[in-house]
Parts: sequence; structure tokens; C-alpha cells
Amino acid sequence: MASFPEETVARLLARCPIARLALLDASGAPRQLPVVFAPAEGALWSPVDGKPKRGPGLARLRRIERHPQVSLLLDEYAPDWSRLWWLELRGRAEVVRADGETDPRIAAAAAALRAKYPQYASTPLFLGAPTLLRIVVESARGWTAAPGLPLGEP
Amino acid sequence: MASFPEETVARLLARCPIARLALLDASGAPRQLPVVFAPAEGALWSPVDGKPKRGPGLARLRRIERHPQVSLLLDEYAPDWSRLWWLELRGRAEVVRADGETDPRIAAAAAALRAKYPQYASTPLFLGAPTLLRIVVESARGWTAAPGLPLGEP
Repeated sequence: MASFPEETVARLLARCPIARLALLDASGAPRQLPVVFAPAEGALWSPVDGKPKRGPGLARLRRIERHPQVSLLLDEYAPDWSRLWWLELRGRAEVVRADGETDPRIAAAAAALRAKYPQYASTPLFLGAPTLLRIVVESARGWTAAPGLPLGEP
Repeated sequence: MASFPEETVARLLARCPIARLALLDASGAPRQLPVVFAPAEGALWSPVDGKPKRGPGLARLRRIERHPQVSLLLDEYAPDWSRLWWLELRGRAEVVRADGETDPRIAAAAAALRAKYPQYASTPLFLGAPTLLRIVVESARGWTAAPGLPLGEP
């Protein structure tokens, strides 16, 4: 089990467009969904954005308010299995709701998300009042098929 | 929340090379890792294969023996967000250990894995005696950014 240098983790957080978020449902069973995210203000932020939704009462928000412990998984599949790696970040999530983007933390998170995802030029970053998951990473563990991954050559 | 037709689920299981597996650790917190898998004998099978490992006592096996409820996530990221979709399969996992590949279930799982992954021509499918996760899917839920995904055109 590799322990990736902080610099590597930072570059992966900037590079990977998607993370898989695992959380617990009401019965304590694991659930997953892919999320966009960006680092800002010492945490990772994932917005409830303008991608199509089933409704305003997102299950992920209720679940995190009940069970804040989450896992975020970064990885990139490659048919050449000597290039595989993954990084799991574990932490605590909270739901942050704001009236607007004037709060400095919300402004910083919104700026980081808009900088990372040009898609937010045409997709709303927030549906009405900003709502985001704020995830504070408590530990990270990784795996690589070869030394030097994921940033170097194997 | 879309309910994908069984035919769509079957084609995604055949097409997607990787799934993200979420399970619970000893403290009941969610953990994740990417896994290869193939359907056979009414279940999904994921081998403890010859990719580099830290040791024989894989944490995933201990965790599943303690908490069999798991989630498998399939998705494909696209910079065009109108093409996004994901499918979460929930089920119960068990660790299956065999003396060899003569057991018909193990033979079927091994054949399905070798057919799906040409990498097993050079990477051992098993490390010693076959050990696999067998996951029986109990429910599936999906999401698509546009109707007709993931197999058609949006």
C-alpha cells in the first residue's frame, strides 16, 4: 500500500475530473455515486449543481447529515495493467448551505470549481441557493501497479 | 433516477472494464477500491489476481466476511456532461475459495474473466488456490444526464 506524497495527492486532485463518493444509507449499507469536486480552503468541495436531478431533496445530503464518514476514490483505468493506480481519501463530509456566494469559503469553493470545470460556463454551478458537500480529508492510502505511478513513468 | 432495462445492465457489465467496489471496514465506515469483474452463473465475480498485492491477507476479504453488503458503481466520465451516466449495483458479496478450477462455478467464472480480460494471458488470474469475490446483485439504480444513455445517443 503506497503512501503518496502530498504533492502527488494535490496534483491528482487537480487532474482527476471525477471521484467516486462512498457513503452510508439509512440502513448502514454502502452507497456510491460519481461526483465532481475541487480543493479549496483546506477541504474538498462538491456542489449540488445544475446537472439533471430527480428532485431537490437529494439522498446524498440526507445520508451525509446522518453518517458523515465518507470515502472518495480516484483512479484511472488503463488496458495496460502495469499503469494502474488508485488513491482512496477518507474523511468527514458536511452539507454547507449558503444564501449566496459572498461567504468567503463559498466564494473560494465556487472559484475553484469554475476554474477546474469549464462546463460551468453553461451548466449552473448551483441550483438556487448554493449547496455543497465539504469534505475534510483525514487520511489517504494508495496503490500502484509499479513504482513511480501515478505521475511518473512506471 | 433511471431504472435501466436488464439488457442495458447486461451490456454495461460486459463493456465496463472496471467497477468501483464499496464495502464497510471494521468500524463500519465506507471504503472503496476499483475491481475487475465478470458475470457468470447468475453473479458477478472478481478475482484475487496476480496484480501486485501487499500481502495474502487482503483487507477486502476480511471486510466482506464481516459485512457482506456491498455496492458496485459503473460509470464513464465524459467532458461533455450531457453524456454522463452511472449505474449502482447493490448486493451481497461472499469470498469463494477453491482448490482449483474444476468446480463448475469456478470454471465458469474463470472462463468469463479470461474472455473479458485479455490481460490474463500474461497476468495470473489467481494467486495460488483460486480466491474470488462472488457478488449477487439485489438491486440496481442508475442516473443519466439525457434519455437514451448510456447505450444510445442522447
